[in-house]
Amino acid sequence: MAPFSPSRSFALELDSQDELASFREQFVITDPDLLYMDGNSLGRLPKVAVERARQIVESEWGDDLIRGWNKGWWDAPRRVGDKIGGLIGTAAGQVIVSDMTSVNLYKLTMAALSLQSGRKRIITDTMNFPSDLYILQGAVQSLGNRHEIVRIGSQDGELTPDLAALESAINEDTALVTLSHVLFKSGYLYDMRAITEFAHRKSALVLWDLSHSVGAVPISLDECNADLAIGCTYKYLNGGPGAPAFLYVNKALQEKLTSPIWGWWGQNRPFDFGLDYVPAPGVDRFLVGTQPMLSLLTMEAALEPTLNAGMDAIRAKSILLTDYASYLTEERLPPLGFSLGSPRDSARRGSHISIRHTDAYRINRALIEEMNVIPDFRAPDNLRLGFAPLYISFADIWDMADRIRRVILEKRHEKYPQERATVT
Amino acid sequence: MAPFSPSRSFALELDSQDELASFREQFVITDPDLLYMDGNSLGRLPKVAVERARQIVESEWGDDLIRGWNKGWWDAPRRVGDKIGGLIGTAAGQVIVSDMTSVNLYKLTMAALSLQSGRKRIITDTMNFPSDLYILQGAVQSLGNRHEIVRIGSQDGELTPDLAALESAINEDTALVTLSHVLFKSGYLYDMRAITEFAHRKSALVLWDLSHSVGAVPISLDECNADLAIGCTYKYLNGGPGAPAFLYVNKALQEKLTSPIWGWWGQNRPFDFGLDYVPAPGVDRFLVGTQPMLSLLTMEAALEPTLNAGMDAIRAKSILLTDYASYLTEERLPPLGFSLGSPRDSARRGSHISIRHTDAYRINRALIEEMNVIPDFRAPDNLRLGFAPLYISFADIWDMADRIRRVILEKRHEKYPQERATVT
Repeated sequence: MAPFSPSRSFALELDSQDELASFREQFVITDPDLLYMDGNSLGRLPKVAVERARQIVESEWGDDLIRGWNKGWWDAPRRVGDKIGGLIGTAAGQVIVSDMTSVNLYKLTMAALSLQSGRKRIITDTMNFPSDLYILQGAVQSLGNRHEIVRIGSQDGELTPDLAALESAINEDTALVTLSHVLFKSGYLYDMRAITEFAHRKSALVLWDLSHSVGAVPISLDECNADLAIGCTYKYLNGGPGAPAFLYVNKALQEKLTSPIWGWWGQNRPFDFGLDYVPAPGVDRFLVGTQPMLSLLTMEAALEPTLNAGMDAIRAKSILLTDYASYLTEERLPPLGFSLGSPRDSARRGSHISIRHTDAYRINRALIEEMNVIPDFRAPDNLRLGFAPLYISFADIWDMADRIRRVILEKRHEKYPQERATVT
Repeated sequence: MAPFSPSRSFALELDSQDELASFREQFVITDPDLLYMDGNSLGRLPKVAVERARQIVESEWGDDLIRGWNKGWWDAPRRVGDKIGGLIGTAAGQVIVSDMTSVNLYKLTMAALSLQSGRKRIITDTMNFPSDLYILQGAVQSLGNRHEIVRIGSQDGELTPDLAALESAINEDTALVTLSHVLFKSGYLYDMRAITEFAHRKSALVLWDLSHSVGAVPISLDECNADLAIGCTYKYLNGGPGAPAFLYVNKALQEKLTSPIWGWWGQNRPFDFGLDYVPAPGVDRFLVGTQPMLSLLTMEAALEPTLNAGMDAIRAKSILLTDYASYLTEERLPPLGFSLGSPRDSARRGSHISIRHTDAYRINRALIEEMNVIPDFRAPDNLRLGFAPLYISFADIWDMADRIRRVILEKRHEKYPQERATVT
């Protein structure tokens, strides 16, 4: 960790050296006092997306009408897929934008289990997105309950996975290993290369959920020889609420895999209107049907700040932001009952941290309703704080830590009930 | 059919009596000369949607940020589902908006086949959307190729289905009957009540694809005791390119069916973040994950003209439009090699007609590129013309027939190749 100092002026000094500082101006920020630490749930609105959304609605839908399909809509899933591919280390023709993350996970899981039909084990962990675990369970049910899902746990309160247990669980009966690249609660970052290599030694396929790493962490799917990946676009990529998700299929696997959902966009010659499905060559076969163009094309525009900044600069600032937030947490907050719930080693950490406190739910409420801070609460005791490097400053982090302190010192959390949020 | 007359002044007379004429002003129409007969592929842009789209992007995403989920986003699939439910004759709590049509068909087909696990036949027809046939084939593959898909044909060149063959195909081994309510080529409208009743006598489930009927034809799913339905929102509902689709599950079936895609939005208590899936009560279990809110909420606003006009008025005008277009076709076009490819009986017809010609592909090209008419070409020989009652006038139809005549008389089609379109 860099030698930090606890004063606010030190934060301002860090900001003055921040090469990405000017990117903040590329986002719509109507309330400069708001500390928006939830970019890892829903990224801010890039200004370029505002103008693009108007154009899509008023010019493309309004004027081009059905002709829009020949003017860039039809090709969008591949075109935008390749743009995202550039952020996750893939050569062209391996990433498409389609559906939502869960649907893509279903498609790829079903395809992988069919290819590995002689194997019965699926390995994942208890710290994965629950939504991913549900999809795995549904896929197992779809295939007649012939598979076993093994969930690796943690030895330190869900901060980091038990890697020894993971390695011993992956064996010759393992069809698929599927993990979140960055864990949604603690921010722990898996070593993609090492785990992929280990799984391949047992001839297991590996499927990575990049939702919490894409746009925050450099990813090299091709170099790691990853098999499959999925991810969302509305977190660090700032694609907008519910913007369509993406999926990656390694070129070497594309012709061996078939989607369970035989969509007409994934048909070999969709405009022949033939009555029998023939899968398209390549990753296109994982397309399904007509995609939500307002959301998809607005997301495409919203990628621009990330593409312009580049993943190396984003990662460098992300490490400094999370190091600094970890330092302030451990320097200022333990006497108030907080502890750091994320890895101290930045090499094993994404762009968000968790701060644990037994009253985390109420503190979260007080921060939102009284302190103009937006964190996330994640049960049972995590305040989750996401630092989007394109618009979060070091002063924001200092102010955040200060407002967290004030909630406790001024007992602001005590008026809120000790129960879970209904929607976060 | 009403007693029509062939002069253009008669069309203007029909327009003067059109109670829905003023609805045209509620749509963005930048080129008044364009005859847009493709509302059954992509409906025009309602003005109300322009303002709403701006608000969603600039105010809700830009300002509310993650708080938008508590201010109307989270509930949107149910809220908008119930609005669409009002257009298709369902009591609340049976329709949700989610995913795309093909994904919804996959979910409901898999659910239905699991419920009917002792039965092996799926009945459909050769005139169904090819995309629907592909999804059925994929579902059969997902379930281990234990089912047989029976496709009923036509005795009159794909104009109308062979109903006798349909009835004899539905037997005690039939798990599911699934049909497009209105056939995409000919516009033939199935008798939903009669076919549903017949299938129920054999204890088969019935799944209707409403994509070409919703917003154009009154539908009474509850009264017909339909089991399942799906449909898209970007055709007659004017929801925008690729706007999310909907699905309907009859209340009596909801607790018996399970989606194959176990999504966290369909989980009983999604914000408990439990590691094991428990389906939500009711139709909500068919939700999957985070939906594309720009597309979904813009579509919600775009429903307004349809909701305000009401399906009875829309249907009355639709019948008159298609009767009039059929009349002009048969009065003026047969000497030029055209024939009507749609039912003459309006009770068995949706809101589009097909006009057949051996040179249909080239005529379609000439209409688009030289005559400012946008029809659809559907192989092998159909010019498909959709009449959206909210913005198509009788004068539009007269002008369309006249421009079609001029293409032939002026031999404008002859310069185009005789091959299929790549995107329509």
